[in-house]
Amino acid sequence: MNVMQGAEDQPIVNPHFVRRRRPVLSTEQFVEGILAGDVAVLSQAITLVESSNPEHYARAQEIIEQCLPHAGNSVRVGITGVPGAGKSTFIEAVGGLVVAGGVGIDTRAMGVGAAGTVGSAVETIDRVNHAAGGGNGHKLAVLAIDPSSERSGGSILGDKTRMESISTDRRIFIRPSPSAGSLGGVARKTRETIVLCEAAGYDVIFIETVGVGQSETVVHSMVDMFLMLQIAGAGDELQGIKRGIMEMADAVVITKADGDNVQPAQLAKRQIENALALFPVPESGWRARVYTASSRVREGLTEVLEGVGEYLEFVRGNGFFEANRHRQNQYWMRETIEEALRSGFYGDERVERLLPEYRARVLEGRMTPFMAAHELLDIYRKVNY
Amino acid sequence: MNVMQGAEDQPIVNPHFVRRRRPVLSTEQFVEGILAGDVAVLSQAITLVESSNPEHYARAQEIIEQCLPHAGNSVRVGITGVPGAGKSTFIEAVGGLVVAGGVGIDTRAMGVGAAGTVGSAVETIDRVNHAAGGGNGHKLAVLAIDPSSERSGGSILGDKTRMESISTDRRIFIRPSPSAGSLGGVARKTRETIVLCEAAGYDVIFIETVGVGQSETVVHSMVDMFLMLQIAGAGDELQGIKRGIMEMADAVVITKADGDNVQPAQLAKRQIENALALFPVPESGWRARVYTASSRVREGLTEVLEGVGEYLEFVRGNGFFEANRHRQNQYWMRETIEEALRSGFYGDERVERLLPEYRARVLEGRMTPFMAAHELLDIYRKVNY
Repeated sequence: MNVMQGAEDQPIVNPHFVRRRRPVLSTEQFVEGILAGDVAVLSQAITLVESSNPEHYARAQEIIEQCLPHAGNSVRVGITGVPGAGKSTFIEAVGGLVVAGGVGIDTRAMGVGAAGTVGSAVETIDRVNHAAGGGNGHKLAVLAIDPSSERSGGSILGDKTRMESISTDRRIFIRPSPSAGSLGGVARKTRETIVLCEAAGYDVIFIETVGVGQSETVVHSMVDMFLMLQIAGAGDELQGIKRGIMEMADAVVITKADGDNVQPAQLAKRQIENALALFPVPESGWRARVYTASSRVREGLTEVLEGVGEYLEFVRGNGFFEANRHRQNQYWMRETIEEALRSGFYGDERVERLLPEYRARVLEGRMTPFMAAHELLDIYRKVNY
Repeated sequence: MNVMQGAEDQPIVNPHFVRRRRPVLSTEQFVEGILAGDVAVLSQAITLVESSNPEHYARAQEIIEQCLPHAGNSVRVGITGVPGAGKSTFIEAVGGLVVAGGVGIDTRAMGVGAAGTVGSAVETIDRVNHAAGGGNGHKLAVLAIDPSSERSGGSILGDKTRMESISTDRRIFIRPSPSAGSLGGVARKTRETIVLCEAAGYDVIFIETVGVGQSETVVHSMVDMFLMLQIAGAGDELQGIKRGIMEMADAVVITKADGDNVQPAQLAKRQIENALALFPVPESGWRARVYTASSRVREGLTEVLEGVGEYLEFVRGNGFFEANRHRQNQYWMRETIEEALRSGFYGDERVERLLPEYRARVLEGRMTPFMAAHELLDIYRKVNY
């Protein structure tokens, strides 16, 4: 069945579709298309997830709900690094190896208990292999979280041509960061996009983020493994420690370890290993390993991927993989609730009007922050409750 | 006037007072007593702040409101360190020097713009000096934040006898950590207690916290300067870096630097200095200094206090002192609002009843965390809005 045919039930009036004269899809057609691995349908569904139109949001939720039984059977890997750390070329080079297969990431066992999804892991993998044309290779989705992308015009993954060698590969789906809204909003959209990609048979998900600010923490809260890219260079080795990011890393990769850079990379590797040794063993029980690699001359990449496989085997074995996914889900539920409560309060018309006055009273020492908060809450509750 | 006399207006029915057969006080009497530096009245007012009785809380807010114009003129110093770092003996030794005077902490300029308080700084200091019997010495309040104290029976400052030499000094007021409730609740109470202590003429406030968990962040959000105590020892030097605590420190003190421990302390000092040098300059513009000190043989303590004075002069000069207090007030206002919104939601009878079911649905992969959140929010709003 061609899922791109006209819809019978609840047609979507997405101006985007109308403009391009594409036939509109029903929820059922969206789900069918996604499960069949149709990239065009998957892309349109993600556009609904990212839309600020409440009608699109509701439709996206319907689609996600029906995709859920087919999701969860993937390995989700966060990849971070400061600008210039070589994230794009690393993802391009490693992504090629992932889809070619032969590297030890066993996604078949991924689904066993992974977030308690209903679908059978083996079934999923069979479907994946079928869709990918058989073999041991994986289907890879590359997503991104970059809350600054609206301003910067999409600094990461916005320009797909940077990943020339993989952007035309049908086994790889690349989607730039959602550009609208707060970090929390961008993160929610990416988290929901993961569900759609998994339902479409992508069994390895890379989530790239830029190595500044709070975005690492958000990515860390939705991945099974966190890879940190570092470049050898003065002082930079310890910057990650300072920002608490290295603490989250399950593996650190010193990139651009080629030519004259091999020796500095080796030195940086030892420095980071020494620093990591002082950290207490993380909850996962896994001590982060440090690698040197070059995407340009393609060295050290297989070792990194083997490390990914070993990490996953380890955390599946000790139960951390599953426990971590459960905890992440609880975290997202709590975050969504609290974000909604906050925007309800701060978006209230009277609160918006009075807030500056109360802030001024606190500033001038006429009120404690606690009094100001409680008076504003009283006003809010009187109107809304 | 004896403020301990019987009250005419709105007598407080604190069972604590009744039990001890103390006469009850009016709000006015509380405020008069506090401004006169009456320690017994101050203690009773703090008991109201710490009470979970809504009537006491309301009375406490009235007292705080009237004390506010007389507050803000102090130096607030956070002191942290892991158990065994020697916090009590350090506070005892340094506290003695602070009240004796002669060390360069100029609190006279503190009040200039400090949180925009109304009271004149010079007036306050005059009153302080009068209350303290003149001289250059200060009045010191030692507070604590230890959210674990309920369980542990008050691990810090609970046993005042540990600070034998200063616990009977009338220029020093020691109050253990509030023991009830969440970290947020404990922090709010301590933050309000600062206002009362300042109104009572205490112009130097130490806030001690135990060097584990999130309590440092909370203390950091209510002090002008953050002192971190460290002991020399294997690996411990970098533990602070890992937990992000050393990043908050404006000064690091290697304690117990006496006898055989002098050399290891000097080594630890250099290691920490090296690590700190790799951090970017903090927003205050002040690079944390590292000291070695011994409370037992009383060495290095004057240097630490001089460092405190230099830091304060520096951040008053560049405007960070005032900007930081303003930001802290905004932070506390926001935190109080969000905490109230959260407890309104999670304390709702229907939400409480349905939450486990929704958590289970998320756990079993039947719902995304986002769907569960939105359905619960709909239920909450239907009942309450």
